[in-house]
Amino acid sequence: MPALVECVPNISEGRRAEVISQVAAAIAAVPGVRLLDQTSDADHHRSVFTFAGDPEAVVSAAHALVDVSLREIDMRAHKGEHPRLGAVDVVPFVPISGISMEECVALAHRFGREVAQRHGVPVYFYANAALRPERMKLGDIRNKVQYEGLAEALATTHVPDAGPARFNERAGAIVVGARPFLIAFNIELDTTDLALAKRIAKEIRESSGGLPAIQALGFALKGPPRVQVSMNVLDYNKTSLATVWREVETRAAAAGVRVLRGELIGLIPLGAALQVTASALKLDGFDRARVIEARFLE
Amino acid sequence: MPALVECVPNISEGRRAEVISQVAAAIAAVPGVRLLDQTSDADHHRSVFTFAGDPEAVVSAAHALVDVSLREIDMRAHKGEHPRLGAVDVVPFVPISGISMEECVALAHRFGREVAQRHGVPVYFYANAALRPERMKLGDIRNKVQYEGLAEALATTHVPDAGPARFNERAGAIVVGARPFLIAFNIELDTTDLALAKRIAKEIRESSGGLPAIQALGFALKGPPRVQVSMNVLDYNKTSLATVWREVETRAAAAGVRVLRGELIGLIPLGAALQVTASALKLDGFDRARVIEARFLE
Repeated sequence: MPALVECVPNISEGRRAEVISQVAAAIAAVPGVRLLDQTSDADHHRSVFTFAGDPEAVVSAAHALVDVSLREIDMRAHKGEHPRLGAVDVVPFVPISGISMEECVALAHRFGREVAQRHGVPVYFYANAALRPERMKLGDIRNKVQYEGLAEALATTHVPDAGPARFNERAGAIVVGARPFLIAFNIELDTTDLALAKRIAKEIRESSGGLPAIQALGFALKGPPRVQVSMNVLDYNKTSLATVWREVETRAAAAGVRVLRGELIGLIPLGAALQVTASALKLDGFDRARVIEARFLE
Repeated sequence: MPALVECVPNISEGRRAEVISQVAAAIAAVPGVRLLDQTSDADHHRSVFTFAGDPEAVVSAAHALVDVSLREIDMRAHKGEHPRLGAVDVVPFVPISGISMEECVALAHRFGREVAQRHGVPVYFYANAALRPERMKLGDIRNKVQYEGLAEALATTHVPDAGPARFNERAGAIVVGARPFLIAFNIELDTTDLALAKRIAKEIRESSGGLPAIQALGFALKGPPRVQVSMNVLDYNKTSLATVWREVETRAAAAGVRVLRGELIGLIPLGAALQVTASALKLDGFDRARVIEARFLE
């Protein structure tokens, strides 16, 4: 099975269309890489690129993104509402199929060290690639200290994991990591009872003792007025979409409420979809090896 | 989306391993083709090859199979239990994704005419590629008349759709067609009540007014003793695996019986699996375009 890695870098440029296009073109020019999505936000002055491919191709594309971004973006001129440490702010590597988290961590470390050396920029490793417990969460690295406070923090809380501990005023710093694929999944209930959606969300989210790797909130929807349990599935190998659906449906049914529909945001890995197929048909050992098209992945 | 076609030729050779290997090698040697499965039966003296790829590659591989088979197999020496008309007995083309049935019919017609001309062999078109209503079913072409009766039938019931109407005693004749993908799917019930399995099978099969494109039978299983509804899903775009599952589960539940598990035989198209995902999560418009890996199919 060929290895497939996704990379979702965030850069501190959301306004100059020509720079954003140059970054996108540099990614798409790497053989074996597909640019799956890109979004820019002018208020946040920030863009997110989603691309995937075999591991080596993805590392090359991430380097290409850094090269263009550090050439074109000067953090001294950057203002935006979103927290950020640098011109290339965050670079997460995400295993999709045929590659382990450990291999993605190694990829992140290699990439981070190469970038640090090549561009003389401080690099921090986060999430599964974190080298220090206090750098597990992106927010713990980036939100209290931002670009403006970095010069001061470099010798104290923000000693880099790779690269020089001196302030790079043009580039800032880069946070590099590896993490599981995140699936944004919403379930709409046939009721306007917001308290029910909030209660179900609370019962199923990990933080209140619910399902592993599930974040959940209850929301009211307009037109038509209904409620939704809105979830992040942080690791579908810990809790599948099938389990999430069943747990929400059971709780709604107990309150006499029907589940109306599910909503997936963006793309999902094949493995996450096939887990649902296997669960719905109670199939033993059903996976991508049983899917004709999967034989044609290169 | 790249086009993917499957081809499942049956040849009248199930004993000589070196001939079977030569055929397999000839298929696998065609760039863009994957040989997905091969099975040989010595009693039937017959082998089935399953391969897939882009349409042009699949036609090339089918030609390669015919070339080797007609060179190595002499029907004058062939004895076997399975009905057959020729050394290459049946060549069905099956749309998997990114290609319509109409395009597969055109592919079958082109291939059949090329083979007829190149090898001087009578060709009949069946299933969706049939040119005559009495040739829709393979059995209507092949089972009453077999190789031994072909010389006589060529001028009457078996005037070829392509190729000469004279008997080719070495090669016999070839039946070429296009048909939807067939999924063999079984559902095991937590009971020994064979009458229930037979009743459910009867209720859901198309021939007795049930679900479109569904064939079904009830069987007893041994060790542990249980019953099974055994189905052929002849066209999952007419009746999905999700619908089959629901219809069997509802009927079993009405008799107080639990559905234990499903069983898929062999490989299935991605589209058939994703239909189940979409149904289980009540997703609108979920298809292969939402699956990351599908972007990497070439």
